[in-house]
Amino acid sequence: MSSAVRRDSKWWGWGESSHEAAIDPGSLSLLRAELGDLQPWGRPGSIDEVKLSPPEPLPGTIAEAVGVANVLSGHEDRVRHAAGRGYIDLARLRSGRLASAPDAVVLPAGAAQLAEVLAICAREGVAVVPYGGGTSVVGGVEPLRGDHGRLVSLDLARMRSVTLDDTSLTATLGAGLRGPEAEAALRRQGVTVGHFPQSFEYATIGGFAATRSAGQASSGYGRFDELVTSLRMIAPAGELKTLETPHTAAGPSLRELAIGSEGVLGVIPEVTVRVRPTPERERYEAWMAESWEAGCEVVRSLAQDWTLPDVIRLSDEQETRFSLALSGPSGFAGALFKRYLALRGREGGCLVVIGVEGEREVVARRRSLAARQLRAGGAAYLGQSAGRAWKRGRYEGPYLRDALMDAGAMAETLETSHTWSRLGELYGGVQGAIRGALEAQGTPGIVLCHLSHAYPDGASLYYTFVARRLPGEELEQWQSVKAAACEAIVAAGGTITHHHAVGRDHVPYMKAEVGELGLGLLRAVKQRLDPAGILNPGKLIG
Amino acid sequence: MSSAVRRDSKWWGWGESSHEAAIDPGSLSLLRAELGDLQPWGRPGSIDEVKLSPPEPLPGTIAEAVGVANVLSGHEDRVRHAAGRGYIDLARLRSGRLASAPDAVVLPAGAAQLAEVLAICAREGVAVVPYGGGTSVVGGVEPLRGDHGRLVSLDLARMRSVTLDDTSLTATLGAGLRGPEAEAALRRQGVTVGHFPQSFEYATIGGFAATRSAGQASSGYGRFDELVTSLRMIAPAGELKTLETPHTAAGPSLRELAIGSEGVLGVIPEVTVRVRPTPERERYEAWMAESWEAGCEVVRSLAQDWTLPDVIRLSDEQETRFSLALSGPSGFAGALFKRYLALRGREGGCLVVIGVEGEREVVARRRSLAARQLRAGGAAYLGQSAGRAWKRGRYEGPYLRDALMDAGAMAETLETSHTWSRLGELYGGVQGAIRGALEAQGTPGIVLCHLSHAYPDGASLYYTFVARRLPGEELEQWQSVKAAACEAIVAAGGTITHHHAVGRDHVPYMKAEVGELGLGLLRAVKQRLDPAGILNPGKLIG
Repeated sequence: MSSAVRRDSKWWGWGESSHEAAIDPGSLSLLRAELGDLQPWGRPGSIDEVKLSPPEPLPGTIAEAVGVANVLSGHEDRVRHAAGRGYIDLARLRSGRLASAPDAVVLPAGAAQLAEVLAICAREGVAVVPYGGGTSVVGGVEPLRGDHGRLVSLDLARMRSVTLDDTSLTATLGAGLRGPEAEAALRRQGVTVGHFPQSFEYATIGGFAATRSAGQASSGYGRFDELVTSLRMIAPAGELKTLETPHTAAGPSLRELAIGSEGVLGVIPEVTVRVRPTPERERYEAWMAESWEAGCEVVRSLAQDWTLPDVIRLSDEQETRFSLALSGPSGFAGALFKRYLALRGREGGCLVVIGVEGEREVVARRRSLAARQLRAGGAAYLGQSAGRAWKRGRYEGPYLRDALMDAGAMAETLETSHTWSRLGELYGGVQGAIRGALEAQGTPGIVLCHLSHAYPDGASLYYTFVARRLPGEELEQWQSVKAAACEAIVAAGGTITHHHAVGRDHVPYMKAEVGELGLGLLRAVKQRLDPAGILNPGKLIG
Repeated sequence: MSSAVRRDSKWWGWGESSHEAAIDPGSLSLLRAELGDLQPWGRPGSIDEVKLSPPEPLPGTIAEAVGVANVLSGHEDRVRHAAGRGYIDLARLRSGRLASAPDAVVLPAGAAQLAEVLAICAREGVAVVPYGGGTSVVGGVEPLRGDHGRLVSLDLARMRSVTLDDTSLTATLGAGLRGPEAEAALRRQGVTVGHFPQSFEYATIGGFAATRSAGQASSGYGRFDELVTSLRMIAPAGELKTLETPHTAAGPSLRELAIGSEGVLGVIPEVTVRVRPTPERERYEAWMAESWEAGCEVVRSLAQDWTLPDVIRLSDEQETRFSLALSGPSGFAGALFKRYLALRGREGGCLVVIGVEGEREVVARRRSLAARQLRAGGAAYLGQSAGRAWKRGRYEGPYLRDALMDAGAMAETLETSHTWSRLGELYGGVQGAIRGALEAQGTPGIVLCHLSHAYPDGASLYYTFVARRLPGEELEQWQSVKAAACEAIVAAGGTITHHHAVGRDHVPYMKAEVGELGLGLLRAVKQRLDPAGILNPGKLIG
């Protein structure tokens, strides 16, 4: 059996089996007070109990192409490749009922085998779902077959090479490298990509490129699309390879056509990205803004003065209150911290976390520029410990979601972005839509928001909502809230996604996003690259 | 007659009639010593003497769409829209013989009229060459008809609106605005785009977007593609409008498909770009690096430490020597300056110009960071006067070319880019190819190069070559040098163009640039947007 396939995370939830986020009794009481009587949600039993149809037999030529050991049709691997990590994926896994699963998991060793597998699948009419870390929260790895009777999950776990150009400070990275693996290999050579999304521990390099990922430090290091200098993309119709030069004016950017293509236009075997020297020092700290509006104004001034720290996050009042009330993943020492805030008259404010990384002198200079503007904008300094606690807990969100689900809650996130002049309208519109949809179902909930990616012209908003689960009606309950939020985003002119991508869940909103002609263009490109329509049916463009 | 059409520049050369660059007798002797005996090249007489075939009659519906006053088929407007501003364009205009000219110049008032004109032309089979400033140096406005019997030049001069969002610091600009006009309107409101290519005085906003223009201050303000936050593009098949948000992860970037589309995929009526507060202060200064290699290393260190000034230019030894020898547009006070250099033992070095703009304090800080690294890299400070002289002369290059042509020289520029690790190979390869091709024709020339756009992973190289013109064989002489240079670029893996675009001249190299499949994708997009193939035939993808 292929030694590359990964089975090292919870099959039904997030992360490694030995690691869990616990909700203490006090926090649980608080949740119940807000959400009503929660009915605990049991975890599923053994993976063997998940019901699947028997796999369809696949063309033998696939096993000839990649080696028989690299075509896995066993129960565990099929289940593990059948779902992403959105709320609905997790709800289905908990229920032990999956709508569908791949007939096999196929692991090509490199670009040549990958091309061969795609050629076979195109010829034989086998649908292909490219698979990196399986961390999509928008249904990106849902095993939809389209018009095809068979489906394989194309797992890139064997494509994990790392090649550094230490003169140009670029690294060519295999698509199957998980975040920590790529970082470890690069840090041994003194450099970092600096890309740390919340999914970092399990998501892969190929996935970052295919979904336009944005990391928590994107204000400093750049979003992943900004880090990619060139890439390869393999489609049934052939290979696209962009030139490895820092810039070109030779027509439309084909690199930007491959980035964000979500496995629908082709499969990305490797990307070349900018790297930086590993930071000598880092400084994370917390501030308290007087209000959401005042906080937004400070972030705007930092962005428009080009003095943004590498990380900047502004929580709204609700998120701030909950971060402080729950002694959860962010590790704020609740009571003590609240007393500290009360002393400063800042109980009602909005938490700001900033982080600066780099050479000692650069960190000091950039931190001092940011601090000056935060102070000028009325924010109060809360010290480094809360900032460090945020950094320690930066990958904990998905673990906490499992714990919330254990407790009987629906917990989901979604995100958008807009220009500064329309951010307030978007903020209120989406918040109101989520609240309203939850209340309409008799499950009023907690709606939290933070701003986490700032630009001179605008920012992203990231919403978390938690409500009492309606047992047996999880899908309908979630769909109604998701639809209301998406419609509010569209109505305010925001983007349907700032960094979660389109996947299956956002397909209905792509017409509002790119227009009828935009969709037509993407379909024309798809038709040229994948005339048989085998690549990730039902995603991105439907 | 339409009051919008522009007739305010030399029809046969660059810029306004009252402004000329003179070459003094000393410089002329120096040129003759290098290039051999130059045979002066007379300027053409009256524009009326240019021979054109009579215009083909156009469908009357075009005049109905835009108003009869906005369809111009007079001799002068046809000649003025028949050529760009590359060496070959200018050589043809001097000779009074044009290969072809548009049958008429059509000026739509806005996006609706533009869409109507395209619909008529698609229906009637009339080729359309979108026209902004007419400053293309790669044949971008050459009136090629493709399979069509008639051709119109679609001049965007009536589309010049300016709308500022002073909260988001973005401006929506009509495609037909020339650089100075857009800047003046914005500066009245306290902001600037910061986009200053050498063609700034005549090139237009739409052209900047359609050709992926990069300005001289692109290290600081960003290239034009980086400044565009959203745009509209109108094609015969309909309109593409990208969402005005700071970022989206909703699939491939259609904005990046429209940018660089060179009028082949559609016509851009307006773009929204980031603006910044008008700089309070600016500081331009010159340094002398010990050598080309040492200079490249300093620029690399600045780029990789993210401490690049807004403008940075490094001339190679030949360009440095000529800049100092010719008391031309850059205004160096030759002899005095040379004595100054001799005192410092730097006669053989490479000139570096840097410029920093912004708030007083920011300029001081960034200048001091750059100066520290320049010194550490062995560069010697030459003071501000030479930097200021460069800035004063930043738009003078094209005027000087007319003077060189008057004197009997062929003068042309071309540019490319590559990663730092392969920049040396590219530099030598292209230089050798140009020299070799000139010598092979018995016209050994001057080949100058500078690095002017730097990135953490690489930089652009910009070549200027000047040689004795072969009268009557201008096209063949130029073609042979151009082909040699392009082949050397391809052989070194560089891009065929960093910011001049593809136009007509670089079409043969697009296969090397984007591959067969990449070309196929662009053609599939073209087919979807412009099934009748009326838009700018023969450009970009051939």
